[in-house]
Parts: sequence; C-alpha cells; structure tokens
Amino acid sequence: MSKGLLIVISGPSGAGKGTICKELLNELDLNLSISATTRDARVGEVEGENYFFITEDKFKDMLLDNQFLEHAEVYNNYYGTPKEYVFDMLEEGKDVLLEIDIQGALSIKEIYPDGVFIFILPPSMQELRNRIEKRATETKEAMVKRLDSAYKELKYVFKYDYGVLNDTVDSAVDNINAIIKAEKCKVNRQINLIKNIKEV
Amino acid sequence: MSKGLLIVISGPSGAGKGTICKELLNELDLNLSISATTRDARVGEVEGENYFFITEDKFKDMLLDNQFLEHAEVYNNYYGTPKEYVFDMLEEGKDVLLEIDIQGALSIKEIYPDGVFIFILPPSMQELRNRIEKRATETKEAMVKRLDSAYKELKYVFKYDYGVLNDTVDSAVDNINAIIKAEKCKVNRQINLIKNIKEV
Repeated sequence: MSKGLLIVISGPSGAGKGTICKELLNELDLNLSISATTRDARVGEVEGENYFFITEDKFKDMLLDNQFLEHAEVYNNYYGTPKEYVFDMLEEGKDVLLEIDIQGALSIKEIYPDGVFIFILPPSMQELRNRIEKRATETKEAMVKRLDSAYKELKYVFKYDYGVLNDTVDSAVDNINAIIKAEKCKVNRQINLIKNIKEV
Repeated sequence: MSKGLLIVISGPSGAGKGTICKELLNELDLNLSISATTRDARVGEVEGENYFFITEDKFKDMLLDNQFLEHAEVYNNYYGTPKEYVFDMLEEGKDVLLEIDIQGALSIKEIYPDGVFIFILPPSMQELRNRIEKRATETKEAMVKRLDSAYKELKYVFKYDYGVLNDTVDSAVDNINAIIKAEKCKVNRQINLIKNIKEV
C-alpha cells in the first residue's frame, strides 16, 4: 500500500481557501487535519471534530516533545497540528487535507517536504479587494491592512509546488482533484507498486 | 501566455503506449510531434502528417546542425524529432504529445528537462506476457526476447516523473489528463500569470 498524501492548502487572506476546502471534503475522499488548541470550546464545537481542546500545560509538554507539525499563538491562545494524528492517517494510506496560513505551511514543508503544497491564488488584486470588501465585517482600516498583507503574502507562492487560481470554486476544485491524482502517479510515490509489477 | 507542455510518453514494449496516445489525441487538445525519417513513405502515408520524409544528406545536415531533440537508426533508416517543429508549437502555447522509446525519452530529458516524462506501466509482467502473446505476430523466440527486454526496461521508470499503470486505457488516459492539468498548475509554469495578478 502507498502512503496517503498530505495536501496543504494555503494562500492569502480572501483568496477563498475555506470555501474550496469545504467543497474538496464534500467531493473527494479526504480526511481533514484537526488542530489542538488551548482556547475554550465555543458553543457547538465538538472535541476531536472541530479541535482537540487541551490545557496550556499539555500544549507546552507536546511542544517540548516535538509533537507538532506547526504551531502558532493567536490572541493569547495556542494552536498546533498534532504530528502523530496526521502521520498515523498517512501511514494507513489516507489522504489528509490541511488548511493553514502561509507561515504554518512553510513550517510543515521543512518537517515534511513530501507534502503537496498548494497556494490558492485570487484572480486579481482588484477581485481580492472586492471579496474582502463584500464581507464588510471589518473597519475600513482593518480592510486596508488585510489587503496590504495579502499583497505581501502573494510572493510566497514561489515556495509552493502548485498555484491554483480561484476564479470559480468549481475550477479550483477540479484542478486540485487533478493535482491529487497526478501526485499519486509520481514515480517516487509508487516504489512498492513498481516492485510488485516486476514480481508478478 | 504560458508555454505549452511537452508530454513525453514512453514505456516498455507491450505496455500499450500506442493505444493510449491515440485516445489522448482523440480526447484532449494535443498536437502530435512528427518525426523526420529517411525511409520511403509507405502507401497512404502523408508528408507532414505521418512523417517528414527527407533524404539522408538532409538528415545528416540537420544532425550536424543540432536540429534534433533525439534521433535513432532502425534497420538502416534514420528517424529524428525536429527540435524547431516542437519548440515552435510550445512557444505558441500548444501542448505537444511525443510517443517514443525509452532511449529517445532520456535523450529528450537531457535537452529539455521541462518536459513531462510519463512511463506507461503494465499491470504485471504476466499481463505484459499475455498482451505480447495475443498479438501473435512474432516467433516464439522474438517474443521471449521482447519480454526479456521489457523486463529490463522497467527499471528506467525511475528516470521519469510519472508512472501510469495501464490496467485499462480509460483509467490511464484519465490519469494522464490529470497530470497535464496538474503540471499547468505548477508554480514555475505560471510565472507570468502570478505577475499579472499582482499588477491588476
């Protein structure tokens, strides 16, 4: 059996990562990576489904023990991707989807370069601006800041394997589906299969 | 505009390259690379469609002038893939399909590593044997020789980017279609697109 694929999806704020990942989980046989966090569960959030809710002590122990693929602090709470949870699924041949910010993706790439690193691209900066403005959940100042940081984040696309244009969700999902199929055809992911052919 | 892809399909004798390439040309928007040859045209063969028929002098001039992506001698005739013909199509953004033996594919990889190198895998050596036997156009001795060389050729799969299992033609074509889509999403093939996003 071949190992599963770790599919890492990231990209600038407003590019549409979240919508695309939801659709990927609907359409394909993928397992979502679940983060551990020290923040309290919100109403409706389920342990082991939305997050693994752990104490700060436990988080620090895991961190010391090198048990995270990546971790970050956001508003005084800690978040991290548990290595064992992800690696166990990959060993079982399951494909794992991980939606994450650029910093996190680059950390994961250092630990696990065998992952498939996909950067979601907005069709244009103008369109990104329209999308951020449409949400209208933020002050003008926050919006400008977000757009500015999205612009700066774009240059990180060159650290990724693939750039998928999000002009429509359907076409982006279609391309990511193709990327997953193609990655499974890579020779270095099929060493066992090729050995079998020679033996039978 | 992005450059077209050079899709190089090869693999051991009997793996089913020919059938797969015919189907790819039917289903996808691909241009077949055409070889130059010094052999005489057979009945029904059309200049510039099946081959470019040229004299031995012309062939040698082109060879001296480094005008072939690869070339080979078969039964005292010369065959070669004209570089200019292929590169012109790639520059126009057209994808080019090239079906070729392993030796030729490896020569092309040295000159043009940007190509997409796909090795067609038989499901098993037993199945390969069945297929070669089914053709029944050869003596027992020729068949054994062909099978033996197919076995030896299998190890060259590790020089390729992708290995596509030909268990059914449909699944092989589906996977190659995915590989082509995925390759077009590679970041290093989209430098212009990414530049455009930042400017608009």
